[in-house]
This record gives sequence, C-alpha cells and structure tokens, in this order.
Amino acid sequence: MYGPGDVRVENVPDPTLQQPTDALVRVVRSCVCGSDLHPYHSMPASAEGSPMGHEFIGVVEETGSAVSTVKAGDFVIAPFAFFDNTCEFCREGMTTNCLHGGFFSTAQAEAVRVPQADGTLVKAPVGEDSALLPSLLTLSDVLITGHHAAVTAGVNARTTVTVIGDGAVGLLAVLAAKRLGAEQIVLMGRHKDRTDLGREFGATDLVAERGEEGIAKVRELTGGHGTHTVLECVGHMPAYEQAFGVVRAGGVISRVGVPQYEEAPVGMGTLWGRNITLTGGPGAQRPYIEELLPDVLEGHIEPGKVFDRTVGLDGVPDGYRAMDAREALKVLVQP
Amino acid sequence: MYGPGDVRVENVPDPTLQQPTDALVRVVRSCVCGSDLHPYHSMPASAEGSPMGHEFIGVVEETGSAVSTVKAGDFVIAPFAFFDNTCEFCREGMTTNCLHGGFFSTAQAEAVRVPQADGTLVKAPVGEDSALLPSLLTLSDVLITGHHAAVTAGVNARTTVTVIGDGAVGLLAVLAAKRLGAEQIVLMGRHKDRTDLGREFGATDLVAERGEEGIAKVRELTGGHGTHTVLECVGHMPAYEQAFGVVRAGGVISRVGVPQYEEAPVGMGTLWGRNITLTGGPGAQRPYIEELLPDVLEGHIEPGKVFDRTVGLDGVPDGYRAMDAREALKVLVQP
Repeated sequence: MYGPGDVRVENVPDPTLQQPTDALVRVVRSCVCGSDLHPYHSMPASAEGSPMGHEFIGVVEETGSAVSTVKAGDFVIAPFAFFDNTCEFCREGMTTNCLHGGFFSTAQAEAVRVPQADGTLVKAPVGEDSALLPSLLTLSDVLITGHHAAVTAGVNARTTVTVIGDGAVGLLAVLAAKRLGAEQIVLMGRHKDRTDLGREFGATDLVAERGEEGIAKVRELTGGHGTHTVLECVGHMPAYEQAFGVVRAGGVISRVGVPQYEEAPVGMGTLWGRNITLTGGPGAQRPYIEELLPDVLEGHIEPGKVFDRTVGLDGVPDGYRAMDAREALKVLVQP
Repeated sequence: MYGPGDVRVENVPDPTLQQPTDALVRVVRSCVCGSDLHPYHSMPASAEGSPMGHEFIGVVEETGSAVSTVKAGDFVIAPFAFFDNTCEFCREGMTTNCLHGGFFSTAQAEAVRVPQADGTLVKAPVGEDSALLPSLLTLSDVLITGHHAAVTAGVNARTTVTVIGDGAVGLLAVLAAKRLGAEQIVLMGRHKDRTDLGREFGATDLVAERGEEGIAKVRELTGGHGTHTVLECVGHMPAYEQAFGVVRAGGVISRVGVPQYEEAPVGMGTLWGRNITLTGGPGAQRPYIEELLPDVLEGHIEPGKVFDRTVGLDGVPDGYRAMDAREALKVLVQP
C-alpha cells in the first residue's frame, strides 16, 4: 500500500530464515481485514509503500534449527501476532503482550517468515483442499478477535450483549457471544445481508439505527437499561459513543475495533458515574485458537461464512476496493 | 458550602420522615471527605449554598411505617449512597446503581433523613461510646471505596498492586489490597506521615516521585513491567497519566477518585494497544459493608487510623481548611 486507495501487487525477494526460531510458511489462504481499511483511507502516501496483511494459514516450508513443534509439511494457523508462548505475559495467556513478540504485516503474499515459530504456529490436521480453510483462517484474526471481545467483557448465560458493527469481527463477536451462552444478543448494523448472517450466528435482535436513535432502540429492547456487555467492533468514535449509550450501569464495554482516536469520554457522565468497565485490545491470544479449533474442526461453528468473495493475489487491490465499497464483507485471498 | 473555601455552620429545619420507607438517624460521627475538597476548590459561588457530607454512623431515632429491618435505638452504618437493595441492580451487588437510589449530601449535620432505610442501613452491635466508631465510620465511604478499587481491579495473591494517592482512600486501598492477599503493594505518595501509615497498612514499597520519574521508579520495582493492578485514588488527570504509565500490559486500572475530567487517553498508545482494562466508580456497594464489618468488629483491621483530627460541628469549616492544607489526613466530626 502506497497511500490512500493505492494498493499494488509487486514482486519482492522471498523471505528467508533469519533466526533459529523462525519458520517459513507458504501461504495457502490470506485475507483482507477491516482494520486494513483504516490505512486504506488515511495512511500518508509514501514512495516506499508498506507491505500489508496479518491473517494467514499455510504450510510450513522450512524451519530454523531451534524450532521443535512444527516441521516442513505441517498445515498451520498463524494468529495475527507472533510470540514465544513462554514469557511471563504469554504464561498469563496474554500473548499479544509477549516480551519477544510483534505483529505480522506481510501476509497478503505467497510466503511469510514467522518469528518465534514454536510459540506462534498452531497445527491443524487438514489438507490444502479442506472445505474448512475459510473457517480455519478466521482463527488467525476475526474469530479470535470477536471471541476476545466476548471473553474480556465477561459474556455468559446471564449477560445480555450488544454488538456494535456488522463487519466480520462484529458478526463473529455475535457467534462468540452465542457460543459462550448469551441469550439476548442485539446486533447494531444496517447492512441487511450482513445482519442476516448475524441472525444466523445468533443475534436475537437487530438495530439498524445509529447514534441517539440506535441507543434508544437498544434501551427499549432491554427494559430501558441497556445490556450488561457491549462488544465494540468498529473503532471509530461514534461507535464508542454508542457503546456507553447502550451499556447497562455496572456493565462492561469491550473494544476490539482498532481505536481511531486517542482521547475519549471516561468521566462521571459516561463511564465512572455508573461503574462501567472499559476493556479489550488486540485479541491474538494463543489459548483462544486452542479453545476454538475443535469447534471449527467438528463443524459446530462455521465462522468462514464471513468470506463472500475470493481473489488471487492480483485481485487484492480490487478486494480492498470492494470491501471499502461494502460490496464484499470479507475478501479471501488464494495466492 | 457557599463557594470555594466558604463553609458555614447554620441552623436548618430538622429533617422529618417523608416516605414510609424513610428513617431518621441521629448522627454520632460524620467526617470530611477528600472528594469534598473538589467543590471546596471549584464550586460556583451561590447565595443558597449546598449542604455537605455523605459519611455517617448513628442511631435510628424514628422509622417510617414500611421500615422493618431497623428500629429506633439501633446503631447503624450508612453508606454514602442509599438504595432499596431489592432492585435488579442491587441484586447484582451494584447498589450504587439502584433504580430507587441516590447519594447522601447532608451528613455533616446532627441528623439525616435516610431514604430506603431497609436497603441502606446496616446495623452494628456497638454503643455510642465504642472505641470502634472511627473504624466503623470508614465503612461509610473510605474503606469500602478503597475495597471497591481493589475488588474491581481483581487484586489477589498473584497480582502486584500500585496505589496512587496517599489520602485516606489511597491508604485504605492499600489495606484492602493487603487483606485480599496482594504481596507487593507500591504506594505512590509524598507525605511521610501518610506513607508511614500506608506501610503499617501493608505497602511494601513507597514511591514519592510523581510523573515520569515516579513511573520509572515503579517500573524499576517491578522488573520493568509495572503492576498488574493500579488503584487510582485521586481523581485528577496527572494521577490517571501515572496510572497508565505504571500498569502492566494486560493489567487493570481501577479509579475510585472522583474524576475531575471527562476526556482521557484510552487509545492505541495508552490502554488499547496493551490490553489495559479501565474500571471503577462509586463504591457504596452494600455487600462490601457486610463483608468488612466482621473484620472491623473483631479488630483484624483498623481503618479508623486514617482519622487524625476530631472536631465538633462548629469546627467543620476549620476541618476543611486543615484537610485542604494537608495539616490533617481526615477529619472526624462529632456533632
């Protein structure tokens, strides 16, 4: 990506092993993320450009001498962050805070160098022709991110839920909330094809209105009080404002949309006075993949339904355009 | 209080029962709160003035016809909020969000009308001459507020803790954290007489520096990472900035100082990028009083040590002055 709206497909040198803890992974499927649209709108133009993409599944091609848990030929899922899975932060399950970690940024490509391969890669017992590939790919980001929202918000059978945003993360936050037992799940979104999928994933109520009108609707649906938990899956300030408008006193807002603001209201009139908790962040926690993988393999959940278009690498620029224009919900990339 | 620095003692009509759920309580002890200093600094001057005070213990004088759990002659503790203790919010333990509740504001007085007396008042088996009165009075606000900070932050034996602020709430947040099992408690405060009491209550480390220097010190004490939990007991923006400076990635900031700001940094660079949770709010939750009262009655904790000056009602204006000048930590009022 060279600037707003400017995505190019280029030949670059193949990645190589650089550390004994690295692996090289041939990308079988990648995709375009809603968060990729933030720079697509507003990154400063540059002559060098930035490689893009942080979601991929693939096959290990080569491993460094210190790698022991995966080997050439293994089919693997890579979360959008890498981590050693042994440091004190990883041991607490918060692998995005790994002391030796970082985030992927070159996955819309044919191959990726994976640092900390032992910690990062999770093997999946499937072949390259598996019908499960789209669902497995969601374990790289959108499903674990939606799950992170639901987990950090404390969703369970006794909590009501509002999901803000009908993008792929929002829809999979619905699925995650349903999976954790939530009985009332209000989805705020206004694209019917998307909210239809949200219903299929478990949304019990849909609210198409936004702002004050949307807040009033959610309150109507919840006895005037709002929901115990709010999963904010957008990242823009109006979504944050909706979140504190629909959250119940004593409730929790979890944000997994990358915030496009630094300052926000948190004082007496918004969060503090009603004991609202604000949580969330990057959700590439390895334990989530291990928890969710069996449900995907056994077909209990089908998160891959969020992909509604497939392109080759040459089609990636048009994939960005289509997602930005909301012609496509989420674009799968098959290199 | 009629304006900044302008506190007057006046005769007003005695309170009377207004609802069948009311009780009248004769105040045995009240006090001045750190949060009373916020209007003492900055309230708009007015001709009518505002009654002050929200912390008191006393003896029930009279009860409305619907009151059944307390009767004339009972010694009671009143939290700083009133609530019915039966609505759906109260049943979740979050009594400050009661649908029929509110906050006291006339307790620096001889008597107070207590709405929702059955829900609000907690009986204590002591007499008016008990040596435990100061400690019992902390159950009205400062101890339960410090406890709220520790509970909402999730303090336990595996979490390290930073307490920001050496006022009465900060010191009792130290006590609460210690009581919940925390093994490392860093107290940030620069008044030696106060931090000495903090040590007595369980602080393991003291940091007198503020701002960047203070943050660096706390990080030094915690292997470079900061603490899992931060109990922010001040309410001003510099304390908030210290909080996100010393909190560990994946950690929790709980705010119980009344925020003197509405907007604050919460984005990628402060909270979100490191999965920091922001929680807290008013802590007058009835279950806390029920949980802490036995420890006070049995002498396991002595939170009343935060009172270092006693005045009569006539001495209240000077009590404000002394607390504001930091001559006194917390002023007990004996009407």
